[in-house]
Amino acid sequence: MPDKMTDLIEELALANRILAHEGVLDAFGHVSARHPTDPGRYLLSHSRSPLLIEPDDILEYTLDSEPVKPPKVHLYAERVIHGCIYQARSDVMAVVHHHAAAVMPFCIAGKPIVPVFHLGAAMGEAAPFWDQHDEFGDTNLLVVKQEEGHSLARALARHSAVLMNRHGATVVGGGLKELVSRSIFMCQNAEYQLHALTLGTPEPLHRGEVKLAGTLSLLPNVVTRTWEYWSVRLEAAGGMPPRRSSAKAARRPVPKTARVTPRERRKGRRR
Amino acid sequence: MPDKMTDLIEELALANRILAHEGVLDAFGHVSARHPTDPGRYLLSHSRSPLLIEPDDILEYTLDSEPVKPPKVHLYAERVIHGCIYQARSDVMAVVHHHAAAVMPFCIAGKPIVPVFHLGAAMGEAAPFWDQHDEFGDTNLLVVKQEEGHSLARALARHSAVLMNRHGATVVGGGLKELVSRSIFMCQNAEYQLHALTLGTPEPLHRGEVKLAGTLSLLPNVVTRTWEYWSVRLEAAGGMPPRRSSAKAARRPVPKTARVTPRERRKGRRR
Amino acid sequence: MPDKMTDLIEELALANRILAHEGVLDAFGHVSARHPTDPGRYLLSHSRSPLLIEPDDILEYTLDSEPVKPPKVHLYAERVIHGCIYQARSDVMAVVHHHAAAVMPFCIAGKPIVPVFHLGAAMGEAAPFWDQHDEFGDTNLLVVKQEEGHSLARALARHSAVLMNRHGATVVGGGLKELVSRSIFMCQNAEYQLHALTLGTPEPLHRGEVKLAGTLSLLPNVVTRTWEYWSVRLEAAGGMPPRRSSAKAARRPVPKTARVTPRERRKGRRR
Amino acid sequence: MPDKMTDLIEELALANRILAHEGVLDAFGHVSARHPTDPGRYLLSHSRSPLLIEPDDILEYTLDSEPVKPPKVHLYAERVIHGCIYQARSDVMAVVHHHAAAVMPFCIAGKPIVPVFHLGAAMGEAAPFWDQHDEFGDTNLLVVKQEEGHSLARALARHSAVLMNRHGATVVGGGLKELVSRSIFMCQNAEYQLHALTLGTPEPLHRGEVKLAGTLSLLPNVVTRTWEYWSVRLEAAGGMPPRRSSAKAARRPVPKTARVTPRERRKGRRR
Repeated sequence: MPDKMTDLIEELALANRILAHEGVLDAFGHVSARHPTDPGRYLLSHSRSPLLIEPDDILEYTLDSEPVKPPKVHLYAERVIHGCIYQARSDVMAVVHHHAAAVMPFCIAGKPIVPVFHLGAAMGEAAPFWDQHDEFGDTNLLVVKQEEGHSLARALARHSAVLMNRHGATVVGGGLKELVSRSIFMCQNAEYQLHALTLGTPEPLHRGEVKLAGTLSLLPNVVTRTWEYWSVRLEAAGGMPPRRSSAKAARRPVPKTARVTPRERRKGRRR
Repeated sequence: MPDKMTDLIEELALANRILAHEGVLDAFGHVSARHPTDPGRYLLSHSRSPLLIEPDDILEYTLDSEPVKPPKVHLYAERVIHGCIYQARSDVMAVVHHHAAAVMPFCIAGKPIVPVFHLGAAMGEAAPFWDQHDEFGDTNLLVVKQEEGHSLARALARHSAVLMNRHGATVVGGGLKELVSRSIFMCQNAEYQLHALTLGTPEPLHRGEVKLAGTLSLLPNVVTRTWEYWSVRLEAAGGMPPRRSSAKAARRPVPKTARVTPRERRKGRRR
Repeated sequence: MPDKMTDLIEELALANRILAHEGVLDAFGHVSARHPTDPGRYLLSHSRSPLLIEPDDILEYTLDSEPVKPPKVHLYAERVIHGCIYQARSDVMAVVHHHAAAVMPFCIAGKPIVPVFHLGAAMGEAAPFWDQHDEFGDTNLLVVKQEEGHSLARALARHSAVLMNRHGATVVGGGLKELVSRSIFMCQNAEYQLHALTLGTPEPLHRGEVKLAGTLSLLPNVVTRTWEYWSVRLEAAGGMPPRRSSAKAARRPVPKTARVTPRERRKGRRR
Repeated sequence: MPDKMTDLIEELALANRILAHEGVLDAFGHVSARHPTDPGRYLLSHSRSPLLIEPDDILEYTLDSEPVKPPKVHLYAERVIHGCIYQARSDVMAVVHHHAAAVMPFCIAGKPIVPVFHLGAAMGEAAPFWDQHDEFGDTNLLVVKQEEGHSLARALARHSAVLMNRHGATVVGGGLKELVSRSIFMCQNAEYQLHALTLGTPEPLHRGEVKLAGTLSLLPNVVTRTWEYWSVRLEAAGGMPPRRSSAKAARRPVPKTARVTPRERRKGRRR
């Protein structure tokens, strides 16, 4: 059990950094994962920019978004996004909230992102919109109250993503790797859709194509390929520092290559 | 007192480099801070590109933009921008003048930047325009005369930023950290607003939202998060060289990590 | 003979990395070369992101896209693209399938890319479109069946490239270096064509110009110049790891510079 | 005299690399300087990508674009651009021909670049167009014949730059530093002008402003600032390798910092 937890925490820290390095997250945004054995809890960093998150930053929360242990550090103001979605969607194992540059024009113009290339189908047919102003009037647009989180979760419904007017997007997945690839491909899709508008009217995928192409990014050979690619790119840009909490690790620093993938580790290779 | 001054000078040099590294400043542009104890003076580098500025480059000026000590180096031609604004606005503790790529299309087309996402509210309702030609006719567009500086300060009025036609923008803040985040978020806002126009008509924030979201970037956990993020990104790209003026520092070079944040320093970590 | 094969495999791995580093390929896409002595076979990596491909990753396939030796690793699902084109086009010695950001808006809007600058003429008059849905109805858009590959090859016909609606592009060449420069220049051409549309109606090259400029990138001094440039850029970003399969290489690691060009090697220079 | 020549050759190599690093040049394009003492000759590299050019690559040419010493390497096909302009314009001391991404949309759409911000005035009122097809019919668009070079020089006339339809641009200067800043600011101007079109009709500078702002980039404190900035950015990306031709240099490798500016050199600082 401890290994399962350790692995998930490492993967969660890595998912934060990959999404930051690939341009989905910036100074803001956060990624969570449901607890591996207790579905009534989830894992999320304390308040820190996702590019910098390390395993030791990850804390455990109840689904009311209360930290299980009294925190000594600032927490993300918007963690109810995560808790409320985990309450509403038992199938969801990972959540990311972001303000990616690629989706912001759509969140601002109120125009839907639709899948326009096969990998974009990872987002499903279309992402609904949620405007915090509709139900809550003037706010600072942060989703901080339980009722705001529940409202957002209702707008998400059974979809894979929800666009938040004048704010950003929230994306969910059946696991961290699905979440990472869905978020990245949805951003690529948004960028291509925007540029295609300069040329004419984009042709979205046919309905049947969306369904069939929607699971492409979950194919084992695709997951292996994308995870290695994003990990190695991150590694080349600095990667993950050695864990501070492990005295053993401190004495024998983990080589950088060990941070990438089991495949990388086996070969002891590094770029 | 010397420590307060030393800290501010270090922060000012860092602010210059962060804004250059994040794409707000390029070969040009300059950042100043009001003197920490004498409101009748301000601190600004001699003429140098902001990415390269070190604490030793920072000089002290009167509000007439005269250097307190006779300079041995070139000064920025446009320092009256800073002096005239510090004269007109006792609440302003930091000023940046820039030609960021994100704002230039608006300065050229004469179209207003309006807050279109929550962090963009840091710029306030809207930035006024100032066209140097209106009052001064044909010039080289540099703001070099006292009367030009005063005219710009009048156009800025109580706003947080002013757009300068065919030239750039000037942004003010209650402190360096507010100034840095306001400038970065205003550029992001401009970029998103421009791209949203390809999709349709951008929906700006509601008036009440602008007011409430306008102080988001000043929340302590946000300031901590963004400053660490921008500092670590800068550090990864080369950071700040060790101070030349301190013999002690020269003998015991400050570790790179010490340049980031107190939190970083405590942990002795570095990316 | 072994040397000819070794050289081609090294060049193929390098072509993958160059095209990834120059933004034609990303997590996806793949490059193949026809076998140097047996026209009934071709060389292609196992399933791996092209930026990471090493000579040891390259496998040999029949033109039915079956691996010659039983594979121990995942293969690209879409390798029939390569096999079917090599069957149909005896003049083709190299093939790349990609989803470059520059071509995606055209694949989505269904608008043709036409040569708008002299180097863009490397793609020929115009690239035809192929919509998998026309013949095969709803699919996941991957080209995995022999009949899908043959259909794509028919659409390509005698052209140098074919655009695949809502998917990407496939480009062919008389050799790897021709393929690499054609793919890069076609992407530049697409990007410039898109931006020119903001200004007005792009003027494509005259027919006679396309014919005359179409072979520019094959001029010996151009090939030398571009290959050195792309190789050195790749090298500066990490380059190619030393070969694992050669015990000798493992004992005496090949210097990074040796990975670039014979010219580079001669001078022992490195950036 | 040898020192003057050595300095110019070093500056010319650096100008090539700076313009490549700042995105004006890519695999193609070339920069020349008139001979420091013999106005009937000019200096230009042999055929090599500008990012890679070293002082040892620079050769001497007559104004007929013939190499003074028989060359052992490929030469640029388009060197008549340089020779013909030096013949026609005794005031021109440096020439660059490029295909920068920023100007290509204008060269393709046939729409003029006009100065829209103060630094953009470095290009003058407007750059004329030259279409090789008008006079020479179908060609591969390379400017290789003396009559093509003379025709281009006639189109340039007394201007600072000429746009070449479906090809690129040629820019001239009274010296290398003027040429470098003019080329970079003209590209920034083109990019801002293009983006401003999404917002509305760009307001170009007033005529008098163009004249007054046109010399801004030649102010001593501006030249110092921009040259240090571009040099340090280049240095951070790899800089210039030590000279191969000097045995002394080979024994005592020149420190990287010595490649930047005299100011840098004095301080022995490096980023």
